[in-house]
Amino acid sequence: MTNTALWNRRKQALGPTYSHFYDEPINIVKGEGVWLYDEKGTKYLDCYNNVVSVGHCNPNVVKALSDQAATLNTHTRYLNENIVSLAEKLSSKFPAKLDTCIFVCTGTEANDLALQMATAITGNDGVLVNEAAYHGNSIIMGAMDERRKDFGEKKWLETFEPPNTYRVPEGTAESFAAEIDKGIQRLADKGTELAATMLDLSFDSNGILIPPEGYAQLVVDKTHAAGGLVICDEVQAGYCRLGDNWWGFEKYDIVPDIVTLGKPMGAGHPVAAVVTTREIASKFAEIDSYFNTFGGNPVSCAVASAVLDEIDNNELLKNVTEVGEHLRVGLDKLNDKYDFIGNIQGSGLFWGLDLVEDRVTKEPMHDDKLRHITTLLKDEGVMMGSTGRYDNILKIRPPLIFSKENADQALAAIDKVFSAL
Amino acid sequence: MTNTALWNRRKQALGPTYSHFYDEPINIVKGEGVWLYDEKGTKYLDCYNNVVSVGHCNPNVVKALSDQAATLNTHTRYLNENIVSLAEKLSSKFPAKLDTCIFVCTGTEANDLALQMATAITGNDGVLVNEAAYHGNSIIMGAMDERRKDFGEKKWLETFEPPNTYRVPEGTAESFAAEIDKGIQRLADKGTELAATMLDLSFDSNGILIPPEGYAQLVVDKTHAAGGLVICDEVQAGYCRLGDNWWGFEKYDIVPDIVTLGKPMGAGHPVAAVVTTREIASKFAEIDSYFNTFGGNPVSCAVASAVLDEIDNNELLKNVTEVGEHLRVGLDKLNDKYDFIGNIQGSGLFWGLDLVEDRVTKEPMHDDKLRHITTLLKDEGVMMGSTGRYDNILKIRPPLIFSKENADQALAAIDKVFSAL
Repeated sequence: MTNTALWNRRKQALGPTYSHFYDEPINIVKGEGVWLYDEKGTKYLDCYNNVVSVGHCNPNVVKALSDQAATLNTHTRYLNENIVSLAEKLSSKFPAKLDTCIFVCTGTEANDLALQMATAITGNDGVLVNEAAYHGNSIIMGAMDERRKDFGEKKWLETFEPPNTYRVPEGTAESFAAEIDKGIQRLADKGTELAATMLDLSFDSNGILIPPEGYAQLVVDKTHAAGGLVICDEVQAGYCRLGDNWWGFEKYDIVPDIVTLGKPMGAGHPVAAVVTTREIASKFAEIDSYFNTFGGNPVSCAVASAVLDEIDNNELLKNVTEVGEHLRVGLDKLNDKYDFIGNIQGSGLFWGLDLVEDRVTKEPMHDDKLRHITTLLKDEGVMMGSTGRYDNILKIRPPLIFSKENADQALAAIDKVFSAL
Repeated sequence: MTNTALWNRRKQALGPTYSHFYDEPINIVKGEGVWLYDEKGTKYLDCYNNVVSVGHCNPNVVKALSDQAATLNTHTRYLNENIVSLAEKLSSKFPAKLDTCIFVCTGTEANDLALQMATAITGNDGVLVNEAAYHGNSIIMGAMDERRKDFGEKKWLETFEPPNTYRVPEGTAESFAAEIDKGIQRLADKGTELAATMLDLSFDSNGILIPPEGYAQLVVDKTHAAGGLVICDEVQAGYCRLGDNWWGFEKYDIVPDIVTLGKPMGAGHPVAAVVTTREIASKFAEIDSYFNTFGGNPVSCAVASAVLDEIDNNELLKNVTEVGEHLRVGLDKLNDKYDFIGNIQGSGLFWGLDLVEDRVTKEPMHDDKLRHITTLLKDEGVMMGSTGRYDNILKIRPPLIFSKENADQALAAIDKVFSAL
């Protein structure tokens, strides 16, 4: 079967709703560690897929999945050890206050539940979300996504400008956080009070931003002062991704009210979670009931537990920190060499290269050029992505097991592709 | 570890949001076919869990899961054979018109996406849903669930009375379908036009109802006349559950605009789908974009494909039809014997016993009695559930591999428990 034939069958069976990477989509048939393989055996270094956090087809995770699937898979209305031990193990990675877990199947479900909790508890329905943020694909989460269909004026929603210190160099923690005040005011002007501020502290969709010191705490304080809760969406920033800490919020020394986790917690298996305080979970249970049929099933819990063990046993937090620093040094060298790199931004194993037409005007590189770059990188056997409001930011976000050698290969590929532009 | 100790750890780690079956929750550690086992080795005949459609830990499904998880698990922005062949295989089970599949991770996500499609295409936002229906746990699906927190007046939502021929014996197809007209009118009174009627043709949460002939077509016609689309939620009624047909809508000779599928399609693995016409999928793709990170990943698709093969290879549709008829005959005998059985309702391997205080007044049996009955059944080694507006309906909904011998054991257990009441 040629790729064209497969592609035609795909269009026939799946319709036009499915998008794909690369003008000539590739047929991926095998994954192993940081590697993906196409049908011809061509090997790609995966610098894009965060979901397979502990590597493609991690043998210990696959074993946990297979063993538990052969033993029992059912819901949480019976007792089962797996969900309890996973919750205990997961909670131990959080500040003591965040001691209560609720398991769901996807990051969308986690964010949707977190917002149900916030609206129920605060009695408000206003939501602040940063411009270009992605928190999922349910009706409500999709409504927060600026790239989706515009469903008209949303009385309950306002966006705030993210803290982009490259494009707003004069910005301070205070000036960026003032965007929260403005958002609260715009909600108030519509007669809406704040239920929650949704915060992805990697600012993934904005091209991985590092806010100024003190910014995150100001956001928390302003949100609380307005009667809202802070929901940290750690699908991107969590699970050691940013290095030095397990969670994005720890990097900025805050403790959110509710944390949401997504598919990296199952290395691709659909398992996700809400982690919150006992007080919030209890208040929510008094006001409302929530049940997720197979959220927290024994198989998903065995998988999520194996992922935590892999991170600990292989010291992947240390790896992310060290390889991330190695990557930063290499990226800085490229920054010196290519003047269409406007900024190198990120942390740990999550980096964005804000590419520009001109370093002075900072005009974003036109997105067809970045599409060309990611295609050339793929032809060099390296997979990277694109992101940002102008789709001009080259995104590097490999599995957590990425080595310095892998980083060197990725850097060399960027160098080669950039030098030929 | 005693169950009390596990129970206490669970309360500590998961908080009060989790509910459980039975006053003394049971610790389930193993599943096989129609059987569940607790930590002491006690064996329970599973007459409750529909999700494990082809049996607990079905070896062929487990093998498909394990093999694919060891090979590749990634998203749909690369080509992959699995999603294409699953879509082709699944579409072949539907009327020719329903030829386009979109895969997601849960039934909630499927219904939520179906409603996104309906609102985008019709330009309306009104929804009709039958009283007591359950279509998921996202903010919008949860808002349709009468048992959840009341979030105040919902301009976009109206419920309609389900076609209960036992409790409304004078009801006809026309009179029951007139509830749709009334719902459309109530929406119009609020300035809302109809986007979709959500229809679970098993009426699971109403205790499994069989509407009069012609009812379903009238619902379709009235919905279309009002400018809305018909979404058939086949999470409960589909996958051969009602016997004779693969899908609930086929039983009633209608073709919906959009069909949603949930976890039975993965026998517990989180995989779900929207199946619709090419026209609807294309229009939606023109208006909006939708992406589900790991919906349709190669592992989920391998699992869902194995489930379809198991149903075909083991002729489970025939099994459901035959064992369902055997069960019906046995339940009718119990009906003759116990006057607190008000009605036996259902089809295939999905039955409800509407239990009453009095056959003349039809006063529903008080729910603490049904809780007592399900506990006594559990003590007899048989698991059944409860449902309905008054929580007075004993629900029988075993895996599709249920045999006549299993049915006889279930009937004998009911007889024993009922005779001792």
